[in-house]
Amino acid sequence: MKLGCCYYPEHWPEDMWAGDAARMVNIGLSRVRIGEFAWSRIEPQPGQYDWDWLDRAIATLGDAGLEIILGTPTATPPKWLVDSMPDMVAIDADGNPRGFGSRRHYCFSHAGYRKECERIVTAMVQRYGDHPAITAWQTDNEYGCHDTVVSYSDAAAQGFRRWLAENYPDVDALNSAWGNVFWSMEYPDFEAVDPPNLTVTEPNPAHVLDYRRFASDEVVTFNRLQADIIRAHSPDRDIIHNYMGFFTEFDHHKVGQDLNVASWDSYPLGFLEQFFFSDDEKHRYARQGHPDIAAFHHDLYRGCANGRWSVMEQQPGPVNWARYNPAPLPGMVRLWTLEAMAHGAELVSYFRWRQAPFAQEQMHAGLLRPDNVEDIGASEARQAARDITMLGALENDRSEVALLFSYEAAWLLETQPQGQSFRYLELVFAMYSGLRRLGLNVDIVAPEAELDGYAMVVAPTLPIMLSSLIARLGALQVPVLIGPRSGSKTDDFSIPANLAPGELQDLIPLKITRVESLRPGITAKADSGEISRWLEHVETELTAETGLEDGRGILFASGGLRYLAAWPDAALLEDIFGRMAAEAGLSVDKLPQDLRMRRLGDLCFAFNYGTQTVELPETANRDYILGSSRIAPADVAVWKAG
Amino acid sequence: MKLGCCYYPEHWPEDMWAGDAARMVNIGLSRVRIGEFAWSRIEPQPGQYDWDWLDRAIATLGDAGLEIILGTPTATPPKWLVDSMPDMVAIDADGNPRGFGSRRHYCFSHAGYRKECERIVTAMVQRYGDHPAITAWQTDNEYGCHDTVVSYSDAAAQGFRRWLAENYPDVDALNSAWGNVFWSMEYPDFEAVDPPNLTVTEPNPAHVLDYRRFASDEVVTFNRLQADIIRAHSPDRDIIHNYMGFFTEFDHHKVGQDLNVASWDSYPLGFLEQFFFSDDEKHRYARQGHPDIAAFHHDLYRGCANGRWSVMEQQPGPVNWARYNPAPLPGMVRLWTLEAMAHGAELVSYFRWRQAPFAQEQMHAGLLRPDNVEDIGASEARQAARDITMLGALENDRSEVALLFSYEAAWLLETQPQGQSFRYLELVFAMYSGLRRLGLNVDIVAPEAELDGYAMVVAPTLPIMLSSLIARLGALQVPVLIGPRSGSKTDDFSIPANLAPGELQDLIPLKITRVESLRPGITAKADSGEISRWLEHVETELTAETGLEDGRGILFASGGLRYLAAWPDAALLEDIFGRMAAEAGLSVDKLPQDLRMRRLGDLCFAFNYGTQTVELPETANRDYILGSSRIAPADVAVWKAG
Amino acid sequence: MKLGCCYYPEHWPEDMWAGDAARMVNIGLSRVRIGEFAWSRIEPQPGQYDWDWLDRAIATLGDAGLEIILGTPTATPPKWLVDSMPDMVAIDADGNPRGFGSRRHYCFSHAGYRKECERIVTAMVQRYGDHPAITAWQTDNEYGCHDTVVSYSDAAAQGFRRWLAENYPDVDALNSAWGNVFWSMEYPDFEAVDPPNLTVTEPNPAHVLDYRRFASDEVVTFNRLQADIIRAHSPDRDIIHNYMGFFTEFDHHKVGQDLNVASWDSYPLGFLEQFFFSDDEKHRYARQGHPDIAAFHHDLYRGCANGRWSVMEQQPGPVNWARYNPAPLPGMVRLWTLEAMAHGAELVSYFRWRQAPFAQEQMHAGLLRPDNVEDIGASEARQAARDITMLGALENDRSEVALLFSYEAAWLLETQPQGQSFRYLELVFAMYSGLRRLGLNVDIVAPEAELDGYAMVVAPTLPIMLSSLIARLGALQVPVLIGPRSGSKTDDFSIPANLAPGELQDLIPLKITRVESLRPGITAKADSGEISRWLEHVETELTAETGLEDGRGILFASGGLRYLAAWPDAALLEDIFGRMAAEAGLSVDKLPQDLRMRRLGDLCFAFNYGTQTVELPETANRDYILGSSRIAPADVAVWKAG
Repeated sequence: MKLGCCYYPEHWPEDMWAGDAARMVNIGLSRVRIGEFAWSRIEPQPGQYDWDWLDRAIATLGDAGLEIILGTPTATPPKWLVDSMPDMVAIDADGNPRGFGSRRHYCFSHAGYRKECERIVTAMVQRYGDHPAITAWQTDNEYGCHDTVVSYSDAAAQGFRRWLAENYPDVDALNSAWGNVFWSMEYPDFEAVDPPNLTVTEPNPAHVLDYRRFASDEVVTFNRLQADIIRAHSPDRDIIHNYMGFFTEFDHHKVGQDLNVASWDSYPLGFLEQFFFSDDEKHRYARQGHPDIAAFHHDLYRGCANGRWSVMEQQPGPVNWARYNPAPLPGMVRLWTLEAMAHGAELVSYFRWRQAPFAQEQMHAGLLRPDNVEDIGASEARQAARDITMLGALENDRSEVALLFSYEAAWLLETQPQGQSFRYLELVFAMYSGLRRLGLNVDIVAPEAELDGYAMVVAPTLPIMLSSLIARLGALQVPVLIGPRSGSKTDDFSIPANLAPGELQDLIPLKITRVESLRPGITAKADSGEISRWLEHVETELTAETGLEDGRGILFASGGLRYLAAWPDAALLEDIFGRMAAEAGLSVDKLPQDLRMRRLGDLCFAFNYGTQTVELPETANRDYILGSSRIAPADVAVWKAG
Repeated sequence: MKLGCCYYPEHWPEDMWAGDAARMVNIGLSRVRIGEFAWSRIEPQPGQYDWDWLDRAIATLGDAGLEIILGTPTATPPKWLVDSMPDMVAIDADGNPRGFGSRRHYCFSHAGYRKECERIVTAMVQRYGDHPAITAWQTDNEYGCHDTVVSYSDAAAQGFRRWLAENYPDVDALNSAWGNVFWSMEYPDFEAVDPPNLTVTEPNPAHVLDYRRFASDEVVTFNRLQADIIRAHSPDRDIIHNYMGFFTEFDHHKVGQDLNVASWDSYPLGFLEQFFFSDDEKHRYARQGHPDIAAFHHDLYRGCANGRWSVMEQQPGPVNWARYNPAPLPGMVRLWTLEAMAHGAELVSYFRWRQAPFAQEQMHAGLLRPDNVEDIGASEARQAARDITMLGALENDRSEVALLFSYEAAWLLETQPQGQSFRYLELVFAMYSGLRRLGLNVDIVAPEAELDGYAMVVAPTLPIMLSSLIARLGALQVPVLIGPRSGSKTDDFSIPANLAPGELQDLIPLKITRVESLRPGITAKADSGEISRWLEHVETELTAETGLEDGRGILFASGGLRYLAAWPDAALLEDIFGRMAAEAGLSVDKLPQDLRMRRLGDLCFAFNYGTQTVELPETANRDYILGSSRIAPADVAVWKAG
Repeated sequence: MKLGCCYYPEHWPEDMWAGDAARMVNIGLSRVRIGEFAWSRIEPQPGQYDWDWLDRAIATLGDAGLEIILGTPTATPPKWLVDSMPDMVAIDADGNPRGFGSRRHYCFSHAGYRKECERIVTAMVQRYGDHPAITAWQTDNEYGCHDTVVSYSDAAAQGFRRWLAENYPDVDALNSAWGNVFWSMEYPDFEAVDPPNLTVTEPNPAHVLDYRRFASDEVVTFNRLQADIIRAHSPDRDIIHNYMGFFTEFDHHKVGQDLNVASWDSYPLGFLEQFFFSDDEKHRYARQGHPDIAAFHHDLYRGCANGRWSVMEQQPGPVNWARYNPAPLPGMVRLWTLEAMAHGAELVSYFRWRQAPFAQEQMHAGLLRPDNVEDIGASEARQAARDITMLGALENDRSEVALLFSYEAAWLLETQPQGQSFRYLELVFAMYSGLRRLGLNVDIVAPEAELDGYAMVVAPTLPIMLSSLIARLGALQVPVLIGPRSGSKTDDFSIPANLAPGELQDLIPLKITRVESLRPGITAKADSGEISRWLEHVETELTAETGLEDGRGILFASGGLRYLAAWPDAALLEDIFGRMAAEAGLSVDKLPQDLRMRRLGDLCFAFNYGTQTVELPETANRDYILGSSRIAPADVAVWKAG
């Protein structure tokens, strides 16, 4: 695994560049990402390019031996461009323009802006595509950040109508598929369909889901436009995009098909604070992040581009953008780095080299402080570089468990949660976390992924289940868990004619006749653990494997396939996954709360996310390469698998 | 009492219609409501009517012996109509249009849309007005749903100016009545008056109140337009509108004057979740609804159209629109049905016949599941039909207590709450609930209603009290309770010259010299119970009947009339109502928390809203027609009054 | 000190005026403010002035011996004016106009409206500038009330561009100062710069801060326009503006330079409810206000116009505008009045004379009730008038402690809080309160104020510290406390090249290398007290004076200057301020929780803000002019300093 950093030569006096490059190498970094916000410097005025500074920056970095990832600058179109084409900005759900003054002020559907992107990317790639120091390209930056995937502009409306015309044979088919007869919502033609915002009450969920699909597809084609240009002019370079955390607004699997490497931006402390974790978890892990946050995304994005993935931005200290921004516990930057290695990353690149003293992110730490002194992150990166060298190269292999992840499922459940505590990512994360607490290795994969070779398969929920997936699940000889709401919708966002779980009933003979969403505080005891939030009424001849106190069954099995008809707690998941693992012949460790482990190749890693020293569960005959059986807070142990 | 359901033939293949009709009859239903969202099918293109399908649907249902309630389709104008007249939509308080894509996308004040409504209603009534199967009409659907009464469109602004010109002799009178001198808000003419939105800080409350009165009047005339057409062309049919729960945006008493029957849409579980109930109540009654929710509305809407009322939509299972949507306890659908009977309904119509698998309400249960199998609701309806037959016909009679309800009071107190926990509906509901927990029967009536014959009168609060009401109250010989803030405002939204309670001082010699709104947690112990939220300082020679620990009086009596100068808790209300009932010679039962009772004609009903069996308070010599003295959860007992 | 009231002759029949004036004098009032909302009566139609009624009102009040403060009516432009110039209104951050219908519906930057203000003020001053009864002028009313300082109108955008051109040599300098290279935010010219609203994510903080500076300057010049006219035409009259509570949207120090007297509007109960106090404090002080609210503002505004200050509006009973509006404890109106005297006010003027029965503020108490009977406030004002006479005249003198207050600091910390619980006013108030609980007298002064003569200096936080201030602090020979985040930013909103606290490092050798914001519940024990919310990592050779349990130092001293590197609790502040006071030779009293004291001239005042009687800490040999050593709730004691 390589280390790198994100660097902005345009932010610093040119006389600092060479020194910066030398220090990067000295710390142990070998890659550097540059350029992704530099449009106003590359093209200060319309059509007048200024390559000189960038030529020199690339030369300086390359001469130091650094491999350069060059970003296309399309996330930040300059003011002159926006002023020349004011309707290029996205429109929010209230109808307001999302204007210039920060970043991502463009609508993915605007044809004029796409032309401009084509022009600037072509110009960059033509200039640097063959440069030996350029070893990879990053397209744009963090697609969708700041809620920018879905736009309600005229350009988007027109794009949507075109998309509908491509996806439905005629408007009658659309009216029928959406059930527009319901409230006289029938459209006379595609041109009459508007984006689903500013309606009196909720729009048709099928309308919303198609709009989300359309918006996601716009990201795919926007990215492909750039990828195609790069591929044509810059042979043998990797094309990368940097995804974000807990972000599902577009289909990362589809975008990934046009990438060589999926990368993501890992900010465990900010993600802990901003997302669905409990107050207790936010308190307990304030300076470490929840122990499954980074791993979850590593395992997710490994599944997005044929297994190749990186951390493009690694939190090196406090950030600026969460509600509260504490500092990582000493050791966490190294821990996060080695954990990425344990999950098979090609690169961990710290964001950013040096903290900028100005503008929006001036309170975001870097490896270097604004006064150019090495910050804590730099010394931990240096240590990590030594560790990595000692551990040697690692190859990704198939994990024990496949967890099926669907972006469409996230959109569908946001469109129609039916109970406001039913959140897709939270359910997936709970299941992932349940597997990891048992020490199992997990691959998070698209529903279309090949499932052969896995010892267990878990689908936290797939409201739309394609026949092909059901057929493949039926052919598997391993334990499979299907979570609540799976198969509850057709591709047109309707209830299946035979009710949920739809065609899955071919594999397990049960029918969901009624569902309940439950307010916080309403729970029911199960044989092990308890359920909350969501409860399904099951009609079946099967005997329940697990039931509630009132006799209602919530877990049913048929062959190796189980269906879970409720939202489980951790104890219930432990029970279910434990049973499945036993059937699969997998040995499990019930790990201490703050400890996580991962095997890769012949190495075993253990990570202590707690503030107390942890003793490893079993310690006999281990050959420790790093650390020992007693792991200090924020520390790591690595040993050869027995 | 009859049973019925809401049915949408346009949602289903025509070959299902006859079977559906036969099954309705088999379950025990005799009425069916259709048509209210079918405009796009009745008139697929401008001026091109398609009556054929509706002719056949009506024939099929009628042939099965069902009485049809036909809805006018004006709640869902089709897309071609909106596109031809884009300014027909309402404008929200932020100035955004409330567009097509769901329902109720019209402004009540738009003259062009009124013309279109006149046209479509006339066409329908001319075609079906004499049809023998059509026994009633429903106008539009749920006026005001999704906050659609108040619009800030140009059409509304013009309508408001017209309304002002009709209600004030000249603009000087308006300026004077509103007190516009206050902040130089004086208008040079009616044309200069705008709707009261988008002001820098709160607009003049008199301005807001008049706008609410105007908006309510627009609903009245919109409904009357349809009622007049129907009455002219469809003789001897009832005209009905379906009101909603906990909804006060327009004056239902006034709209009711143009109706034959007031109906309402009863969703006890959704209402519990969405409204002002405590977390404890939301937990305790999650699958039953608070025991006074349905009864409150029954008693309210019985007072809206000369005593005739129905439940047009009865929750038959889980709904889709609350934050959380649990399933009713088994038995609740039957309980709700029989409770409507106990309060004198003509009809309970379940919404809907069969759960639709598509569009916005696909997660809303029906009597039948989407797979056409009978759901729990159907079997409970079947049982209820048998119960009703056994119980026989019942006639409404006058209840023991009149509770005065004023829509204008709700608007006024929303406009100027003075303390954010002073909510009109919550106070009214607390008083209603206090009466019901003592086993008293209540009529909720307009302030203009005849009060003779009641044993007790309760006015939770009437900020504006007309002289005529005060005179009538003075002439009553029964206990009367007047709640806080009554008489505190003139008709022009000013403080009376002699302070609150204004002219009521003629009946009870006291004056409110100061009021306090109190934050949650600030309470004061009274002789019985305690007060919170609101406390009035009373200047009077009277000795207080009830006081606070600090000696301040909060309940004063003069003759039979009491004035309550604070927001009471349940214990205080029990004490007050108990005293009044004793004076009125009414015997009261302090009911167990989850039990409610009602007498109608010679029958007594008891309903168990709890999850535990309840033993009836006194059981000697009862002739039980249904159930027994031990009532299971969600069960009902009925006996002949002794 | 004088007493007065706010009076609106235009609200009352003319035949009441003389009686009102006589009663004012009888109560002990000698001043009356009028006219500030009367534009629609002064100029009912464009250019047609109606002075007659105002002539008579002034004559009537003046004849009664009252000194009149005449308000310019520019806070409430009449409808005809707005209709003639619709773009004069402010635009909110969402792009919506803030229209007519309440007050303050103007944009400070609109040239046309400034012309109109010039015209109406000139007309008023020309007519009344020499009138003997007019002794002072109030400009406009409560600048900025209802969030009206910052506007996003075209007029504001143009004004901002002009302001930028005046404050930066060229657009390159602006781009460089703001760091616009960061996200390609560079502007080609000043004309390309827009207001910082409606951006996709947070705009550049330097952009926001300059916009706040610009908006504040617009208030300054708007006020100066009026002040210059008044000064030219009404010699020897005081020019006053009435500031608000807990309000920092514009620089009150700068506006104060054009005033003779700073005044403020004191509503302790409403401020308690609406601002940052804990639920416990809101409960404990619901009817008194927190004991430091009024004093804090007295001491703040005394520093805004050369030491001359008044209370222009004093709460006389319940108000109408807070979430909850309880009544003051009997005695509080007198207590507040005498407390203003103890802090050196020239005038306490009650708002308002008589409660208006109409319009927005009809629920706001006056000295008189709407029925023209004296309310509690009137009798307390009468008593206060007697007390004041007995106490005699008092002169302001320098307090023991200077607390540095910066409006710019408030804007900067709102722009970039870095942790959402870091609120400028709350930190300043905590420090002020800590000093006051020790019985210390405090002057709240601008950072530019002369500091000689103070025994202690406290800067709660000054993110931008000018070199001149640092030099002056270095020259002081008294204890100085510098709070967290001081010196953390340059004037251009960047991090100083040598890190925080920037140039202050010349006085104390330490460097802040990292900061943490902490979510509620995360605290750390210090040697005394504990810290929360904010923690800085300090690099220094100094030994910490106070540290945390983990050994990290949070308080460092060098010479007399201390730097506090965290957000302190009350115990920690008591420890620090106690130590500083000892060094300064000041004796401190640790006061009971609800008691506050102040010395002015040779008098000592004590105020009991509690609901229990308080015994004064030391009582020997006191010569009580008012009260005694046992102070009842809401009561006051005054004695000659020993």
